[in-house]
Order: sequence, then C-alpha cells, then structure tokens
Amino acid sequence: MSVDLKELEPSRNEPRLLREVVRPTTIIESTPLSKELGVELTVASETFQHTGSFKFRAAYNLASRIPHKNIIAASSGNFGQALAYACQLLGKSCTVVMPITSARVKIEAVRSYGAVVDLVDTSRKSRAERVAELEHDYPEAYVASAYDDPLVIEGNASLGEELAATDRDFDYIIVPVGGGGLSSGVIVGLQRSRKTTIVLGAEPLMANDAARSLRAGRIISNEGEPLTIADGARTVSVGHHNWGILQSGLAGIVEVTEENIKQGVRLLYGLANLKAEPTGALSVGALLTEPERFRGKRVCCVISGGNVDREVYGQILLDL
Amino acid sequence: MSVDLKELEPSRNEPRLLREVVRPTTIIESTPLSKELGVELTVASETFQHTGSFKFRAAYNLASRIPHKNIIAASSGNFGQALAYACQLLGKSCTVVMPITSARVKIEAVRSYGAVVDLVDTSRKSRAERVAELEHDYPEAYVASAYDDPLVIEGNASLGEELAATDRDFDYIIVPVGGGGLSSGVIVGLQRSRKTTIVLGAEPLMANDAARSLRAGRIISNEGEPLTIADGARTVSVGHHNWGILQSGLAGIVEVTEENIKQGVRLLYGLANLKAEPTGALSVGALLTEPERFRGKRVCCVISGGNVDREVYGQILLDL
Repeated sequence: MSVDLKELEPSRNEPRLLREVVRPTTIIESTPLSKELGVELTVASETFQHTGSFKFRAAYNLASRIPHKNIIAASSGNFGQALAYACQLLGKSCTVVMPITSARVKIEAVRSYGAVVDLVDTSRKSRAERVAELEHDYPEAYVASAYDDPLVIEGNASLGEELAATDRDFDYIIVPVGGGGLSSGVIVGLQRSRKTTIVLGAEPLMANDAARSLRAGRIISNEGEPLTIADGARTVSVGHHNWGILQSGLAGIVEVTEENIKQGVRLLYGLANLKAEPTGALSVGALLTEPERFRGKRVCCVISGGNVDREVYGQILLDL
Repeated sequence: MSVDLKELEPSRNEPRLLREVVRPTTIIESTPLSKELGVELTVASETFQHTGSFKFRAAYNLASRIPHKNIIAASSGNFGQALAYACQLLGKSCTVVMPITSARVKIEAVRSYGAVVDLVDTSRKSRAERVAELEHDYPEAYVASAYDDPLVIEGNASLGEELAATDRDFDYIIVPVGGGGLSSGVIVGLQRSRKTTIVLGAEPLMANDAARSLRAGRIISNEGEPLTIADGARTVSVGHHNWGILQSGLAGIVEVTEENIKQGVRLLYGLANLKAEPTGALSVGALLTEPERFRGKRVCCVISGGNVDREVYGQILLDL
C-alpha cells in the first residue's frame, strides 16, 4: 500500500494512470471481530486511500481521462476532497460547490488541495442550480457527478479488480450503497476479472431508495435528502449509469438501522482498531442486521472511507 | 499484511516461526499529516498486528522459543493479551496477573484467548509479589517479562528488520519508549540489517525515566508508576537487557508532554484516519515537541498499538 510521495507531484505532462497512483486497499483481519460477528471476516479498508476514501479512485480516473482543464462538482463530502486532490496532481483546476453550512474542516480540506470552494446558501438556491449557473458561465468546464458517470464507475472498478486479485475466495462481498457508484464499480471490476462472488449492498434503512428501487424494478427517489448518520449515503437516488449494473449484478441490499450503523463503527473501533466513518461501517452493520444469513461464511466487508468529524465519532463511541 | 486465518489454528506440533505468523507492519502515508508536521512522514502502524499491538512479536517469539508449557506474566495491558493469544496458537497455557481494578474489557480480552487471569488486589499485594507466589507454586513455569528478556527483544527486532527491508530511507525512526523492549528491538533489527538510520525514543515527560537514565549513564527508576495517559509507558524503569542496547543505539529520547501525546492522537485521527492508543501516538507527539529538529526530514513514526478504551479515546477527541 505504499506510494512514494515524490512520485505524486503535480504534472502537466502525460497523466499517470489511476493504477499507478492509487493506494491499494488495506486488507485488515481481526480474529476478535470475526468471532463477534460469527463470520470469517476480511475487511477491505479504503480509509487510508488518498483523501481518506474510495472516492479518489473515481475522481482521479475521471479527471485524468477527460481533456477538460476545468472541472465543476457539487459535493460537501469525500468526492469534493478527492476531486480537488486529483486535479492538483493533474494540474487541472476545480470548483467544488458546497453548502454554506458545511463543516469548516471540510471546506478547508478542499481548499488545501487548491480547489475553489463555491459556497451556496441552500436555503435560497439548490446546489444543482448553482452548478447549472457555473456550467453556463464556464461552458468549457466538465461537470462531474460524484457517482453517476461511467468514468466514476470505471475508477471504482479498480477496487473490484483488487479484491478479485487477492488470494482469497469470499462467499459475499458487502459494499456500502449511496448513489451506487462504488457498488456498481465493484461489480464491474469483479466481472472483468471473471469472479462470480456474490455482491451485496448495505444501505441505511432510513435512506433505502436503492433497496426500494431494486424491489420495484425502477429507480425510486427518496423524498429530500435523508438525514442518516451515514452522510455518504444521503443521496436522493442511485445514478442512471449505475442502475443497470446494480439491477443485474447486485444480489440484494441489506437495510441497516442507524443503531446498527453506529454499532458497526464501535465494533470496528473496539475489535479491529479501525476508524471508519458511519457510511464505511454500513457493511459491518449489514452483518449485524442479518446474522443468520452470514454465519460461518467468508465475508469481505468494504469500508468505503474514514472521514468523520471527531465530534460525531466521539459521540458514537461514548454513546451520547 | 494478510495472514490466512486458517493457518493460525492452534497446534501442538513444531511451532511456526514468528515471521510466518506475524502480520507485517502497516505502512500508512498521509499527505495532510506530512504537511501539518512539516516532515516527509511514513507511519509504521502496529495497530493491526495480532491483538492490536507490537507486543505480539515479543510474546509469540518468547512463547515459541522456550520449552516450557506454562507461562506466567504480569500485565494489565497489551502484553497480557498478546501472550495469551500466542500461547493459544502454540497450545501452551498461560497465567496473566492483573490488578483487580483492571478494565473489565481487558480482563475479558485476555480470558477470550484461553488464558487464566489471576486478579490481585494491589492495595494489599503487589503484582510482583503475586508473580513470585505463582512462581513458587509452579516451579516448572516460565516467568515472562513484558520487556526485559532477550527473547522479547529478539521478537521486536522483527519490526526493525521490516523497516530496514522497505524501499525507503529515513533520516529518523521514532519509537515509543516504555520499558525499552520495542526500541531496543528496533535497534537490533536495523543493526542486523546493516542500516544506520538514527533511532530516537519518544517517552512521556512525566514518565521520563529512560531519558533521565541516558543522561545519567545508568538506569534510573521512576518513583512509583507514573500516571501518564500513555499507559504502555507507565514502567518504573527500562529493562536490564535493553539498557546496553539503548545506551549505545539510541540517538536520544524526546520527552513528550501529556498535551502533545493527546494532540498526536488527534492528528492521527484527523489527518491519517488512524486510531492510535496514546502510547502509540508518542512518536507523533515527539514531532510536535521538537518541530525544528525534524523539519523537512524523512521520518518514520512507529505507532506501537491501537488498544484504547472508547471512553478514554472519546474524551481525547472531544477534548473533555
């Protein structure tokens, strides 16, 4: 998982390929956590990826594969940071639209990578409206979706390929689902590697649009942005580019209560020494939700990221 | 860093070698943390080692290299867990003497590996006295020190060898110092690999017996067990077997305030997504203590372990 820092200096020459700059996922095992969950558990953690989440895979692939020199995206979370860093590495410019209410630490993180942060008062104007305005003002720019873009899926497929390349066989791979970019990427990566491992999604029960969509056979949206603690899964609906892949490639979605998400965070903390953000712990929350289904199985839980404010995390740990 | 769980089943045949069962240290890089600290930082984390700390290296090496079938040790912390797990793997029995005031979660962790926990009321009898009693009752048993034993140093040397074998060159390797078992092990491992990298210790200022010993040229003890938050460094003095190695091989010891230890924990949390126990964060605390000394240097910080109660950790994060 080591990457020489010096090799990641910004460059305006031929861009380096994703596989040359990505940090391989971190494989973590914990005998106590396996015992506690009653499964043979392997954790694939993206928490040590560049910018702390799998989103770097998507963002770098996208930014490196398009000719555009300027990229616009709306994101208050991991995709914004990832895109900002990817653009810094690639010598491109980047504007990230963020709600004016975003945590200061997140705004600063995006700025620290040289991106322009465009703050929008979402009580007056939606992020989508502001992006449309910017798109109009900068017609030469590329507007990037955090999950609904073939280049995003392609980037995330690199994780599926890595999991396929380990010397392990899994009965299940469980992947957090928000907009569906990671889960569809993992499915594509596994298929490309001719692996038929069962892939399951893990979604917050209170933001279960993807589960309802699978049941209905068509994309169903949440009414507004659901305020689950798994803030990476506060998407209104899955992406159109992901939908077909999820419908054919996902064996199902486990719907996880807020309490099981938090318990997943606590178990990863207590028994695996892993700091996961709530969205990242969804996959472990899925094991808590359907213990009989997974008992004794070889399960790979993908932990999608680790970026969580210390106030939120401290409160989960202290059960405040 | 992956080890097949199935290969770690208990066995009473020829014991497997440490290098066959140990998990390689986890190399973590963080551009934001490097920037924040003003160094080119590499983190070598033992938090994902078996039982969550480097102590498994020492414990397994010791337990696998002695003929004794029964091992006695006093430890309320990481060594107890590590020894219990090592003995379970090796089919040996093990008694861990712990104060009756130990956290229940730690007692249960030791028991979960099949060890006998011998609880001692330390207001009436010291742990050393109780160990002496057990030694008298079980003359065939081996009494293991958590840090003052050549087999402990030998086990910890495996980490020095791993660091020597990376393709990186460091100006400094900084190692937490409690009883001196890890730091002397790292020195031995590097020397054996013909590496001349400068090794520095990081010790709590309020438990600075090793720093004072180096200055005095002889082992100096703390008066009683200092109540630093870095509970792995609450040792009364460095070990006799370590002393000569430290005196000749350690370039110095940085004495870290309690606040810088906590700030190290917070920085690893916030900028590297790494859960470290306070003792583990001593090495980052050292960078905060002497920033000018390390500015622009290639520094490897060893994070010795990650086992910290969620109450303690939550309070550090929330700055309570």
